[in-house]
Amino acid sequence: MASIITLTTDFGVRDQYVAAMKGVILQINPGATIVDVSHEVAAHDVVEAVYVTSQAWPWFPDGSIHVAVVDPGVGTARCPIIVETARGLHVGPDNGVLSACLPDQARRPGLPLRGDVRAFAIEREELRLPSVSRTFHGRDIFAPAAAHLSLGVPPDRFGRRLEQIEVLPPLRASRRADGMIEGRVIHVDRFGNAVTDVLAGDLPAAGAVVEAASRRVPLARTYAEAPGPAALVGSGGYLEIAVPGGNAARDLGLSPGTPVLVRPLTARGR
Amino acid sequence: MASIITLTTDFGVRDQYVAAMKGVILQINPGATIVDVSHEVAAHDVVEAVYVTSQAWPWFPDGSIHVAVVDPGVGTARCPIIVETARGLHVGPDNGVLSACLPDQARRPGLPLRGDVRAFAIEREELRLPSVSRTFHGRDIFAPAAAHLSLGVPPDRFGRRLEQIEVLPPLRASRRADGMIEGRVIHVDRFGNAVTDVLAGDLPAAGAVVEAASRRVPLARTYAEAPGPAALVGSGGYLEIAVPGGNAARDLGLSPGTPVLVRPLTARGR
Amino acid sequence: MASIITLTTDFGVRDQYVAAMKGVILQINPGATIVDVSHEVAAHDVVEAVYVTSQAWPWFPDGSIHVAVVDPGVGTARCPIIVETARGLHVGPDNGVLSACLPDQARRPGLPLRGDVRAFAIEREELRLPSVSRTFHGRDIFAPAAAHLSLGVPPDRFGRRLEQIEVLPPLRASRRADGMIEGRVIHVDRFGNAVTDVLAGDLPAAGAVVEAASRRVPLARTYAEAPGPAALVGSGGYLEIAVPGGNAARDLGLSPGTPVLVRPLTARGR
Repeated sequence: MASIITLTTDFGVRDQYVAAMKGVILQINPGATIVDVSHEVAAHDVVEAVYVTSQAWPWFPDGSIHVAVVDPGVGTARCPIIVETARGLHVGPDNGVLSACLPDQARRPGLPLRGDVRAFAIEREELRLPSVSRTFHGRDIFAPAAAHLSLGVPPDRFGRRLEQIEVLPPLRASRRADGMIEGRVIHVDRFGNAVTDVLAGDLPAAGAVVEAASRRVPLARTYAEAPGPAALVGSGGYLEIAVPGGNAARDLGLSPGTPVLVRPLTARGR
Repeated sequence: MASIITLTTDFGVRDQYVAAMKGVILQINPGATIVDVSHEVAAHDVVEAVYVTSQAWPWFPDGSIHVAVVDPGVGTARCPIIVETARGLHVGPDNGVLSACLPDQARRPGLPLRGDVRAFAIEREELRLPSVSRTFHGRDIFAPAAAHLSLGVPPDRFGRRLEQIEVLPPLRASRRADGMIEGRVIHVDRFGNAVTDVLAGDLPAAGAVVEAASRRVPLARTYAEAPGPAALVGSGGYLEIAVPGGNAARDLGLSPGTPVLVRPLTARGR
Repeated sequence: MASIITLTTDFGVRDQYVAAMKGVILQINPGATIVDVSHEVAAHDVVEAVYVTSQAWPWFPDGSIHVAVVDPGVGTARCPIIVETARGLHVGPDNGVLSACLPDQARRPGLPLRGDVRAFAIEREELRLPSVSRTFHGRDIFAPAAAHLSLGVPPDRFGRRLEQIEVLPPLRASRRADGMIEGRVIHVDRFGNAVTDVLAGDLPAAGAVVEAASRRVPLARTYAEAPGPAALVGSGGYLEIAVPGGNAARDLGLSPGTPVLVRPLTARGR
């Protein structure tokens, strides 16, 4: 059965951990199509995993099975879960790492799941590996779960239904009473572009100037047209700061957490 | 339809950019076989992408679809294109990054395409994603084009035919009147081997000594048989400088651009 | 034919070497499922390749074809081989890199192969690429061999049977007369966990304290429950030293080769 299973982890690609997961999946479903999202999420960084998956999962076909394993609590009480949404199935530990499968308005801690989202604990022993280690549930629990799902085993067969799951709040800068948007850098990509939590839809219609690390940068439309450091709407819908032909993070001193201020342009100019 | 689509980019594997491209491809053609060539091309380095693809594409089956996206001009006037050759289809921006699909003698800037090579602009909106960003054509234009090609959509359906495309000149050292070959290092691989632009077929039949970074190194046949630094014909047909058990680039101070001189052996010795 | 072929090399993913191997495999068997185990084995480090494959190969389905190429002697007299075991087929140079396909007790240098293990030289020219380089047998010999095997070509068709192959001794710490176990660090993973050669089954039943780099660390069951540096049984069955939320290798000064001592707990305590 040719289902798509995506993998997002903090395991890296030097070690054999990801390969062991793939072997387990292929033992159960030799026809699975396995796609790596990223294995270079910073170690134990659940927030980064949510950012990465929020930008990747929406592009996959309906019915895809998405596994995310960033799991500092492996082997403890935190529950392995499956979340079923209108678009697909999501497998991982219940520590917030699956948050990107929910719409922003549903990502409030403590909110019960409702509507078209169902979550289940992964409990049935015959749907895990025969022997489960205390240190590698990616291989022993999550990979088998994804493989069984890809063969058509329904999610409610894995264990009890859960009323709520751990979620991280959405990444979205706040707007102040005076119209300024206070955000921060949430990710630096390979090109040194500093992605912020300022959504394109929140930008002032009349234009804006962006301040970060004591610099003012203008808005631009493309990387290439900017004469120097510039802020533009990136491919994920977030404002990002870039230096064409350079590396904004290094050149301007930006890193995850750096405050970013969006100041609306007014009739008086800046 | 089980077509092969290869991907070469400068996106890295830490971010989710490559995964988004794969998701888009699989949405359009769930049966595509996607193979990574490299995503670690240096950022914006079109020349390196051409070297890497020139060494990889020839080994894939006829009919493969090769996508290369190193695209500092994304979102500007440069045209997204498809190039069809006798061996396969090539998709990317028209900035020279697809040069390796042409034989060396056809890689002269400004030369019209002819014979068995046809190029087309990617213009038809229904063969792109419904919404095209200004910063990520890999996902919004090139991935959908490759996927539609893999389903059998003919290249001339995508847009107008182009008489010529941007090309980079081939990597080939020049021979001087006195028989010396003046080349340079074009790539340093993971082992520290310094690949030059001196072609095996250009080497003097009577033997030669190679000079680089003020060192003279002898020719050898295999990495292991060389007693120390040596020059040998690498797997791509280019002369490369290696240090068995060591790292030639680091040990000898070689990097892309370092001049390399091949001096023919004569009856009088060196 | 949908056979699984795994690849383990020291080629890295920046260069195109791995992609060339995949292209060659797909030319011969377009239906092969190719899975990367790791391409980040340290350059020329056969011992690390054996560790990595010993932890990955067992998780793949019976009948899988496992290629391992860490080959400092490429192009010299060392023989390209196929090893057939009850669980699958293994392809690589005869320099010990395939050792993980044998059970521990069979990994004694010079021991003839017996029972259910057969080894063959890869000699037949029509089962290689038409032109074989002296520097890249991964592409020219091992990839074609794996692809032909995946199409059902029997291993004894490739060349003469071999009575023995090069093997590395198994990774297993020794127990002293006084009950202490003298081991060492064999691998540091991405999380900084220092994997030792002390097997879980060799640990004293009454508990133990572990000494490494002038530190005493207690045993723990999970990463998260340890209050500080701790030793626990990792997913591969070996004792490993971890620092929850930290990096044991960096924090404690551990690296491959660091001596590790396991001291049994006694009634008198420590």
